Amino acid sequence: MIYLDNAATTKVLSEACEAAAYAMQSVWGNPSSLHRMGIEAERLVTYAKKQLLSALGDTSGDIIFTSGATEGNNTAVFGLCKVYGKRKKRVVTTSVEHPSVAQPFQRLKDLGYEVVTVSPDKNGEITADSLISAVDDNTCLISAMLCNNETGYILPISEAFAEIKRQHPDCMTHCDCVQGFEKLTVSAKKLSADVITLSGHKIYAPKGIGAMYVKKGVRLSPVFFGGGQQKNLRSGTEAVPLIYSFGKAVEILTPTLKQRFDNAAKICEYAKAKLNEIGAVVISKDSASPYILSIAVPNIKSETILHFLEEDEIYVSSGSACSKGKKSAVLKEFKISDQLLDSVIRLSFSFETQTSDIDALVDKLGIGIKTLAKIKR
Amino acid sequence: MIYLDNAATTKVLSEACEAAAYAMQSVWGNPSSLHRMGIEAERLVTYAKKQLLSALGDTSGDIIFTSGATEGNNTAVFGLCKVYGKRKKRVVTTSVEHPSVAQPFQRLKDLGYEVVTVSPDKNGEITADSLISAVDDNTCLISAMLCNNETGYILPISEAFAEIKRQHPDCMTHCDCVQGFEKLTVSAKKLSADVITLSGHKIYAPKGIGAMYVKKGVRLSPVFFGGGQQKNLRSGTEAVPLIYSFGKAVEILTPTLKQRFDNAAKICEYAKAKLNEIGAVVISKDSASPYILSIAVPNIKSETILHFLEEDEIYVSSGSACSKGKKSAVLKEFKISDQLLDSVIRLSFSFETQTSDIDALVDKLGIGIKTLAKIKR
Repeated sequence: MIYLDNAATTKVLSEACEAAAYAMQSVWGNPSSLHRMGIEAERLVTYAKKQLLSALGDTSGDIIFTSGATEGNNTAVFGLCKVYGKRKKRVVTTSVEHPSVAQPFQRLKDLGYEVVTVSPDKNGEITADSLISAVDDNTCLISAMLCNNETGYILPISEAFAEIKRQHPDCMTHCDCVQGFEKLTVSAKKLSADVITLSGHKIYAPKGIGAMYVKKGVRLSPVFFGGGQQKNLRSGTEAVPLIYSFGKAVEILTPTLKQRFDNAAKICEYAKAKLNEIGAVVISKDSASPYILSIAVPNIKSETILHFLEEDEIYVSSGSACSKGKKSAVLKEFKISDQLLDSVIRLSFSFETQTSDIDALVDKLGIGIKTLAKIKR
Repeated sequence: MIYLDNAATTKVLSEACEAAAYAMQSVWGNPSSLHRMGIEAERLVTYAKKQLLSALGDTSGDIIFTSGATEGNNTAVFGLCKVYGKRKKRVVTTSVEHPSVAQPFQRLKDLGYEVVTVSPDKNGEITADSLISAVDDNTCLISAMLCNNETGYILPISEAFAEIKRQHPDCMTHCDCVQGFEKLTVSAKKLSADVITLSGHKIYAPKGIGAMYVKKGVRLSPVFFGGGQQKNLRSGTEAVPLIYSFGKAVEILTPTLKQRFDNAAKICEYAKAKLNEIGAVVISKDSASPYILSIAVPNIKSETILHFLEEDEIYVSSGSACSKGKKSAVLKEFKISDQLLDSVIRLSFSFETQTSDIDALVDKLGIGIKTLAKIKR
């Protein structure tokens, strides 16, 4: 089996799986309970917080655990606007965000906010200047992702947010780092981000857990109301097994970030060269995250390729997983030509991906290009 | 270790833990992926849905998986009001709800809804008539729990909701069944409920997973916006390991509901008799769920008892876990005298609780009554 769909989801690390099982059967108290079992469960939550804050390089910040990046992004966008958007009704985002940011911005429009959406330029680039100049004195929030989930494109967040904070200290900054965390260097301070969204299942932790980093002093309004857990920012019994598992994955991954990055870069370069030889078109820019490689196979539909590769247990994605095969509006925003748009597939690598996996992919894809394209003509 | 705090949380069944691990490491695809790994993950979700619907006795309904009961209750209350409350601005609930229902009703007040709260009568009873008469033609929603989490009090939901639906077919009915599911008989049809909230970690499944039953034809507005998963009612990658684990727990528990209930009833009666002998006051009514036994130990503070019992690894709760020891407003609503209010502890049983556990509790508590009360005087 060759799994090249790690941007959709990943296999849970055995240590992270064991951590979850440990919390399910050995330290299974409710962190809100006043007795020892509650305190021990709370300790696992504290451990995980520390791991995340340390990985983000800001132990003065706070971590709020969520059910995943969708809840995180929704809470960040709505939660910051509720607190900081009372008198400042302009909000800024980009046209290449994940739906869990793009959709909340649509709702903000319905709620009377002026939504400014920054699009890539004619070269498919989002410049720091375009983000900076979109923010004015009336802007309460800018939300932009670090790394695009469909192409691996890296946005100039550090540069843009630093300047925005310099010009408009009251404008809140949110960064969806789901495809960046534990892959690229994600430093909360360097990003000048007030809130950062993270997801567990993209980094070998289980599905169902995510987190928000919240800079010291930043206030948020919750999306859920209830028992007041997590400083009243996220009511509901903490999902201790998943939280502990997430922390364990971060503890294991953080020291190997550079090594894994270098390996992904090697794999990505190798794949580009090989794919080029068989006539596939590389969509991702050279500066993109090496973990995501978007390519197009001219004249063959994405889904046809996907299922053809599946015959040999090679798994890739057509666009992002959550779009379930729908035509990608985001790729269009990146100025991918209409001709290629239907033929895009996304390869996404893990720390386990090897050049032999790429060889198998390219071999099969080569056959596909010869046989499938003929059928279509 | 004697754990008598099962209403706060439970130990995950080994089969449910294994199910989660299986989905983390063997069937770990993203259900939204178009390839085989996505389809296999989707199959685990479908399996779990079937288990829950079958346990609720209505396979025509739908199941939406949430991160827990707090998200479920929030989504039910806000989601039903958004759809059905456009012209009908009256909503009804009770004064003994869990904070994850009570708090959203507070917000509804802020949003301009007329909130009618039904309180227990002077005997601490909520009658079906009091619920029925609170609903009028202008009411869009009634939300009431099946079983109270602090006292085990069982509300006359079936009787009330059936009559409300007869008199006001357009009034939506929501029932928080977190402390009822897999303990009492919970039939969606008998309850006449449009939406039912369930939680995994109260029934030996992991923390971080819950579900909403939604009756066929009933519409809801989501709380999160994003990739459109779960029929657009709950965006975000499905937490497959937890969902599968929840389904497994339900599959295992459903056939033994009556047997477990009878055992809990036996334990509860045994405890009442024994506790009576040492001077503890039983708070829970005779008709309450046998899984929850609220008692008071006159003249000794709840927290003092809790920590005294903890010395012998006997774990109980002072009030509900999520109130973290704060004075319970709900117990006051149930007309518990001010004198006893500070001395209440909650015992909650699992299918593993034995009479020997009660013996150990009563022995230690007997010593406590003799020694601690003296200190206080």
